[in-house]
Amino acid sequence: MKFARFVIGGNVCTGVVTDDIIREISGDLFTDWEYTGKVFPKQDVTFLAPLVPNEIIGIGANYVAKKEDLPEVLPEIPVFFFKPSSSVIGPDEEIVIPNGIEQVKFESELAVIIGKEAKHVSEEEVLDYVFGYTIANDVTAPQFFHQDGHWTIGKAFDTFTPLGPVIETELDPFAVRVTAKLNGVEKQNSPTELMIISIRKMISYLTNVMTLKPGDVILTGSPVGAELVGPGDVIECEIKEIGTLRNTFVLAKERAKVL
Amino acid sequence: MKFARFVIGGNVCTGVVTDDIIREISGDLFTDWEYTGKVFPKQDVTFLAPLVPNEIIGIGANYVAKKEDLPEVLPEIPVFFFKPSSSVIGPDEEIVIPNGIEQVKFESELAVIIGKEAKHVSEEEVLDYVFGYTIANDVTAPQFFHQDGHWTIGKAFDTFTPLGPVIETELDPFAVRVTAKLNGVEKQNSPTELMIISIRKMISYLTNVMTLKPGDVILTGSPVGAELVGPGDVIECEIKEIGTLRNTFVLAKERAKVL
Repeated sequence: MKFARFVIGGNVCTGVVTDDIIREISGDLFTDWEYTGKVFPKQDVTFLAPLVPNEIIGIGANYVAKKEDLPEVLPEIPVFFFKPSSSVIGPDEEIVIPNGIEQVKFESELAVIIGKEAKHVSEEEVLDYVFGYTIANDVTAPQFFHQDGHWTIGKAFDTFTPLGPVIETELDPFAVRVTAKLNGVEKQNSPTELMIISIRKMISYLTNVMTLKPGDVILTGSPVGAELVGPGDVIECEIKEIGTLRNTFVLAKERAKVL
Repeated sequence: MKFARFVIGGNVCTGVVTDDIIREISGDLFTDWEYTGKVFPKQDVTFLAPLVPNEIIGIGANYVAKKEDLPEVLPEIPVFFFKPSSSVIGPDEEIVIPNGIEQVKFESELAVIIGKEAKHVSEEEVLDYVFGYTIANDVTAPQFFHQDGHWTIGKAFDTFTPLGPVIETELDPFAVRVTAKLNGVEKQNSPTELMIISIRKMISYLTNVMTLKPGDVILTGSPVGAELVGPGDVIECEIKEIGTLRNTFVLAKERAKVL
């Protein structure tokens, strides 16, 4: 089942997408919803990010180029980071390159949406707490990474987390390819089996640190091939079973003040 | 004015604290609230963290020991980090030391509560966007810092962000001392003028990166003197004009699974 958030007639709605139509729903996406009876043609609505995330948690440097490169010993502490929900935009919105720099990096990723509160959950059971999956572009300005290794600011700018176009609840996350096309040219294309820390391991690890909650979004890392890009570039992050998340990069209009 | 969140008779309420009583309010704390007419004696209620934060943003290593140590040139990119809202607890709740380690660090801090959406705001104007101030304990397990410098996991554990006891809206943040007593013995005691990056600078910097929103909490850094502590230790973070945030450290009962 594919869930979308969208705008029609100035109203923000949620619905179930099937072929060319969206059936509006009301209620809580994670627990109890029902059809309202309203149906809209897909081409009449503007898609938004499919949810307003609670926490956004990312994992760094999580793909190898080929299976033989997978390490035998996993890192004891994975590189996790948080992104603020203020950084989220939807399909077709513009990614704003911050003032003072000319380029930022795209990173196409499979994003996991948590549906149930999860604490101390084993790898075997952790997928029972997943509501569904969407596509994320973990946009990054490495120029704002701190020299001591903190990525916070470089990943926190407004517009730096495009999500969408839909949440797919019936995905097999181990049988998909995460891809990206830059101006129509393929730059990323990897099966999720090239993840160093698997989806089960990373979610289970997180539940042993913090209580995951409905609406938490976990960005599972980006395949090799991410690049720096500039204004006018068009990025299409795609996972065939979910859809295509297309955004254009623009320069900031307002000059950022510095310390 | 001092705002508190509290439990009485099984209900979570918000109110205004004066001397020995709390007057319940209803509505939106940041925009439009009114007194309900209900009044409770302070000793009859259990204080909670005074808000459920939107984002929690911290700054690292932000105090010097004495004024002469303040650097002439400020760092270009401050060390900022995010903490998840799942890490928040209230006054008198237990701070849980994660499995596998014996000690964690306390860090008493002045916390800023944002009251209005803020983007690209100058240092001069940025305090107009502040709703009030509370006390935070930025509990940290440095054993879970990543060797490449990422602090995420070491600051993300459940119970690692005690907040409270109240939000004080009439504070002069430049005229307070941030203190901590460990088992009754003073360990931290600094005026906020010993901050390397001032409150105005750090909030203005953040508004040039991300849109700050009502309910965002900014932890402004901890004075010198923070220490590793263990189970049974009692920490009292105090800013006289706000109150005392007291918590006890305990060992985790449930064993965390590792990768």
